[in-house]
Amino acid sequence: MLLHLSTWLEVEAYLETSQGIILPIGSTEQHGPTGLIGTDAICAEAIAHGVGETTGALVSPTINVGMALHHTAFPGTISLRPSTMILVIRDYIACLAKAGFTKFFFINGHGGNIATLKAAFAETYTYLAEIGVNNADQVQCQVSNWFMCGSVYQLAKELYGDREGSHATPSEVAVTQYVYPKSIKHATLSTEVGKGHPIYGPVNFRQHYPDGRMGSDPALATPEHGLQLYNLAVKELSNNYLEFVGRAIA
Amino acid sequence: MLLHLSTWLEVEAYLETSQGIILPIGSTEQHGPTGLIGTDAICAEAIAHGVGETTGALVSPTINVGMALHHTAFPGTISLRPSTMILVIRDYIACLAKAGFTKFFFINGHGGNIATLKAAFAETYTYLAEIGVNNADQVQCQVSNWFMCGSVYQLAKELYGDREGSHATPSEVAVTQYVYPKSIKHATLSTEVGKGHPIYGPVNFRQHYPDGRMGSDPALATPEHGLQLYNLAVKELSNNYLEFVGRAIA
Amino acid sequence: MLLHLSTWLEVEAYLETSQGIILPIGSTEQHGPTGLIGTDAICAEAIAHGVGETTGALVSPTINVGMALHHTAFPGTISLRPSTMILVIRDYIACLAKAGFTKFFFINGHGGNIATLKAAFAETYTYLAEIGVNNADQVQCQVSNWFMCGSVYQLAKELYGDREGSHATPSEVAVTQYVYPKSIKHATLSTEVGKGHPIYGPVNFRQHYPDGRMGSDPALATPEHGLQLYNLAVKELSNNYLEFVGRAIA
Amino acid sequence: MLLHLSTWLEVEAYLETSQGIILPIGSTEQHGPTGLIGTDAICAEAIAHGVGETTGALVSPTINVGMALHHTAFPGTISLRPSTMILVIRDYIACLAKAGFTKFFFINGHGGNIATLKAAFAETYTYLAEIGVNNADQVQCQVSNWFMCGSVYQLAKELYGDREGSHATPSEVAVTQYVYPKSIKHATLSTEVGKGHPIYGPVNFRQHYPDGRMGSDPALATPEHGLQLYNLAVKELSNNYLEFVGRAIA
Amino acid sequence: MLLHLSTWLEVEAYLETSQGIILPIGSTEQHGPTGLIGTDAICAEAIAHGVGETTGALVSPTINVGMALHHTAFPGTISLRPSTMILVIRDYIACLAKAGFTKFFFINGHGGNIATLKAAFAETYTYLAEIGVNNADQVQCQVSNWFMCGSVYQLAKELYGDREGSHATPSEVAVTQYVYPKSIKHATLSTEVGKGHPIYGPVNFRQHYPDGRMGSDPALATPEHGLQLYNLAVKELSNNYLEFVGRAIA
Amino acid sequence: MLLHLSTWLEVEAYLETSQGIILPIGSTEQHGPTGLIGTDAICAEAIAHGVGETTGALVSPTINVGMALHHTAFPGTISLRPSTMILVIRDYIACLAKAGFTKFFFINGHGGNIATLKAAFAETYTYLAEIGVNNADQVQCQVSNWFMCGSVYQLAKELYGDREGSHATPSEVAVTQYVYPKSIKHATLSTEVGKGHPIYGPVNFRQHYPDGRMGSDPALATPEHGLQLYNLAVKELSNNYLEFVGRAIA
Repeated sequence: MLLHLSTWLEVEAYLETSQGIILPIGSTEQHGPTGLIGTDAICAEAIAHGVGETTGALVSPTINVGMALHHTAFPGTISLRPSTMILVIRDYIACLAKAGFTKFFFINGHGGNIATLKAAFAETYTYLAEIGVNNADQVQCQVSNWFMCGSVYQLAKELYGDREGSHATPSEVAVTQYVYPKSIKHATLSTEVGKGHPIYGPVNFRQHYPDGRMGSDPALATPEHGLQLYNLAVKELSNNYLEFVGRAIA
Repeated sequence: MLLHLSTWLEVEAYLETSQGIILPIGSTEQHGPTGLIGTDAICAEAIAHGVGETTGALVSPTINVGMALHHTAFPGTISLRPSTMILVIRDYIACLAKAGFTKFFFINGHGGNIATLKAAFAETYTYLAEIGVNNADQVQCQVSNWFMCGSVYQLAKELYGDREGSHATPSEVAVTQYVYPKSIKHATLSTEVGKGHPIYGPVNFRQHYPDGRMGSDPALATPEHGLQLYNLAVKELSNNYLEFVGRAIA
Repeated sequence: MLLHLSTWLEVEAYLETSQGIILPIGSTEQHGPTGLIGTDAICAEAIAHGVGETTGALVSPTINVGMALHHTAFPGTISLRPSTMILVIRDYIACLAKAGFTKFFFINGHGGNIATLKAAFAETYTYLAEIGVNNADQVQCQVSNWFMCGSVYQLAKELYGDREGSHATPSEVAVTQYVYPKSIKHATLSTEVGKGHPIYGPVNFRQHYPDGRMGSDPALATPEHGLQLYNLAVKELSNNYLEFVGRAIA
Repeated sequence: MLLHLSTWLEVEAYLETSQGIILPIGSTEQHGPTGLIGTDAICAEAIAHGVGETTGALVSPTINVGMALHHTAFPGTISLRPSTMILVIRDYIACLAKAGFTKFFFINGHGGNIATLKAAFAETYTYLAEIGVNNADQVQCQVSNWFMCGSVYQLAKELYGDREGSHATPSEVAVTQYVYPKSIKHATLSTEVGKGHPIYGPVNFRQHYPDGRMGSDPALATPEHGLQLYNLAVKELSNNYLEFVGRAIA
Repeated sequence: MLLHLSTWLEVEAYLETSQGIILPIGSTEQHGPTGLIGTDAICAEAIAHGVGETTGALVSPTINVGMALHHTAFPGTISLRPSTMILVIRDYIACLAKAGFTKFFFINGHGGNIATLKAAFAETYTYLAEIGVNNADQVQCQVSNWFMCGSVYQLAKELYGDREGSHATPSEVAVTQYVYPKSIKHATLSTEVGKGHPIYGPVNFRQHYPDGRMGSDPALATPEHGLQLYNLAVKELSNNYLEFVGRAIA
Repeated sequence: MLLHLSTWLEVEAYLETSQGIILPIGSTEQHGPTGLIGTDAICAEAIAHGVGETTGALVSPTINVGMALHHTAFPGTISLRPSTMILVIRDYIACLAKAGFTKFFFINGHGGNIATLKAAFAETYTYLAEIGVNNADQVQCQVSNWFMCGSVYQLAKELYGDREGSHATPSEVAVTQYVYPKSIKHATLSTEVGKGHPIYGPVNFRQHYPDGRMGSDPALATPEHGLQLYNLAVKELSNNYLEFVGRAIA
């Protein structure tokens, strides 16, 4: 059940049986010479919609732009500052919590979002109590990264080994190929690829990762892999979601 | 050319010939008993994509959640605070302006966004100069509301007259029916509908507009109307965009 | 009844019969070669005081500095950022709402304030509810622009036609001449005057409007016009105010 | 020379000979049963205008609302939060410093403003350097409290002794009586008056100072005293201002 | 009783008999050629611990970094902006007030903190009421500067006369020598020392105070003086603290 | 070399040979019935001082209060909000980076700080570039958690196995016993201890972890273990620090 394709009456009815909601969150950032700038949002959205279908959960619109400041030396990247993103997450949750939602399950497509999301959750719990939201103490937020699902991780290792890398990976590119087969990009990738450097600021990042990839070989990706990975992620995250909303507060 | 389906190399190439970008912005808010919560984002996104195809302009991911605080007494509504939204817009533009974009054309689907967008533009111009962005003085932002296009407005009047109303209108519902024909909703609408009350806070809003509509009769909408309205909006906004990016700075 | 010339005991008594207050808001910004930098505040204050006398309403001190960032390339302009102004408006209303005021009628002298004021109102309604102000749901804010009163607009058209322009207009200059006859300024105005350019950042603004006027011929202004315009504005806004405070919440 | 009664061309000319500006700042807060709510702004404004006339300095519009949170349990008080006021001061100075002003002389009418003003000055010096304002290192801010002028203080002691108190004082009331003789208020003042309690939050303040006075007997005030105090303040602050702007940076 | 060396159960027990807490606050800033960068924090902490022992009061961890922006042209200085420091103080007090503390006694070692602390207290009182903290109206904050204790001031005058100065003073250096005798520094101090210049921005400060001292001769300091000063401060502040917590609210 | 025990001249000299600095960061939060509230700060400080001695690095004052909102239902806990902590870290780094430091090595004693620290680093890199700090692109921040050192982790497992738990652990308690042997606390610990529950808001946390421990048995701690753990952490983090500052930017 997609929030943007529902009416408020349908949401009102939904809340009578569930207080859970899935929030896909991605990023709008460079993904190497062949990866789509929307990769993280595309993956998170597709998988979240799959989880929503599997579980009957409500799915919010996708948060397309996340925390990608370290990619901003590449054109096309859009990033919120962490301090802005904390306010965005707080505003989302405050609106939904006032309406009665208490279980916020973020399906995340971008590693760079995790720290700020966790900071935002902590900020929000206290904020909700301070503004007197009913059931503030019942609110629970969880971030689940599709690419860190055990089953996904294992398949990626089998398919790509060390060439999976950690950004612009063949696994995430594969999922986008499955979702947008008409947008498969081709380019000659240098055999040398940056890897292993810690992430600091945007200029430093581009110095060490000149084409945007981090140790990955996205040329290995295929739409078929994408479907496999998608199915694994949907299955595993559906179970996670059900466990999350079924977990008793007390 | 959709940003999320492009690579950073494609964006780099695009910037050599154009510094313009289209940013669709909508809202996630109640739209009456039959209107989709995503109506404003759906319309803005569809029309922005049409304008992008017509003009060759780059289109950013849709900003799905805007300023809809007055709708937050209806479940399913998500809103940024104006102060948060100003930061979000500032962050978007700062990233893109650093990369070389100077012409920001927002295609907006929600009247409630206009004031905050204008505030954000003013804030951002000064901010860009203060942080030393190259060409800060060339940056120009414009908000174009598809529903206020002359051609759109005229057709809506012809089709619906006074029953167009001002929220959950048949014209916007028609566009969503064209875009998502499988998500057409049906409900018995009361013949009485709130209208003419100024907009204050969320509780007051719901008191005066108990089912969420503002003077509208969305039952008049059809997907065929939606297509007509869509075509008019795309045509008019394409011309507006071209004029906007062609206008010389000096 | 002017707040700054009242005691708290008088305010306490006032609140027993009315919860309405008028807040004049202007700007401190260039108004062309002959317009006073305080034009917008002077007009708003004079008219607000007139409305206060006519209606018996309490009038707050004038907010002299508003949102005029686009004029900041001219010396003497002072502007709040929109994000600052939202906090200022929020603080004003929060203090007054805690004391029992619920009807906030802003008499505005500057078009550039409107967007930020509207954003501030939305921000404030939700804020008041969140901090637990009694009667938060009764709080209503309205911005009334004296220069957009129907009667004022019509007289300006009759007197000045197209030479009214949209900034440093003869009508607003006329009101300041009526209020401060000793501060009437003279300068040779070029016959060419910028007009029709959208408003972007401050440097761009000054490029297109080199002497600060926007399509106006303030040399047409006279103190006698000012008195006429003042009287029309006071009459119309007094009616608006009475309607505003008399309007039942339910 | 009053900024609000000047044109930008006059300010441009002024800047060629002086980079100093006087900013009157008051407060909008209860001043006991007979003191005007605008007392602090009225005094600061009148004295600042006097200093402007004496010295030829430019005087900005009065900042009418300052930091008066501790008075907010009395109706009619309006206060900025300190965090808001810091932004307001920063915005004022940033606009003026970009235009070339470097010497900011605040004439203050409210003790409660001092701490926040000093905090704002520190914040602003660093801010101006960070946003790259020319001559940021030359910017100097000073707060001068008219009621702490040696000559004023001495006369107040002579006239009123211990009955001067520290809020709603006869000396400040006298100045308002001189400026607004038609607004002299009368009320029976209890002989018991709160005094000597530290200032904490607004509820606590009203408990200890039930009618708003702090150890003062404003019934002693006369307009004639007001004129004397005004003259002393103008004379002393004019000297202070001239010393301030004449002081070499190096 | 030191908070960082206590358990939460001990704090819970403490709260049954006292709602007071001592918060040492210093600064991390240059203190001339021989003064320790931590001077202000070292003094505040040592004296606060002494007061805690004398009175049985709970003492929080030391706030090591305060408002020292004017010293930031000297390497090693770390400063919060005033706007940041207000949030820090607010967060500290909010946590402790929610737990039941109502009397906040700041022992301060740095004059530059005073203004921002006072601003923070005002901000916090209103904030606590707005977020609905129990007993918000009972919360009281006080800043006590050890170097302004009458007994300390008198001894410093006796020992050092005018060579006490106002920054990097022999009295504060003496206390650090008493606390950290192994960290006594030696350097040839120029006989000329800046004095009497108002404090503006950091570059200006360093121009007038090139070695960081303000009119002081820290070579006069001895650890024995330090012990004397420490004892006087502890005694006087212990009395102040007991008076502060014993003062009835009503 | 401890910053608070150094002079600015010593820091100036230090900067000629190194641009690295170690910043200990802990927390002030409940650590179960026997753990000290300052545990995380005590451990981070002691180990950071050890690393400073081993490597000759400069060590800043300890950040005693971090992000511990989830512990705030236990009295004695003090926490910054994440949004505040981001500003604090930004202010620290901005001051030090302006002075020439480029390598910021945070030795962290609290898992709850990690997310917010990472968010703060990202925020700060972009901020430094925007405010025009020299060498902004060279600035690098790293957080190293002493309790996650491989050698420490292994010893803790050997000593305590599953009874190490994840909060109020015997290993961190042991380090505090080594550092503050006079503050070893004793209490009867229930054999049942909460474990395995995700961390949400403070009320929920206390429900699941009623005495504050998370799966740990701190009764196993001894000062001798503390010394062993301390030595391992100092050794491993010293190597990490040297690698960090020796790593070439390009």
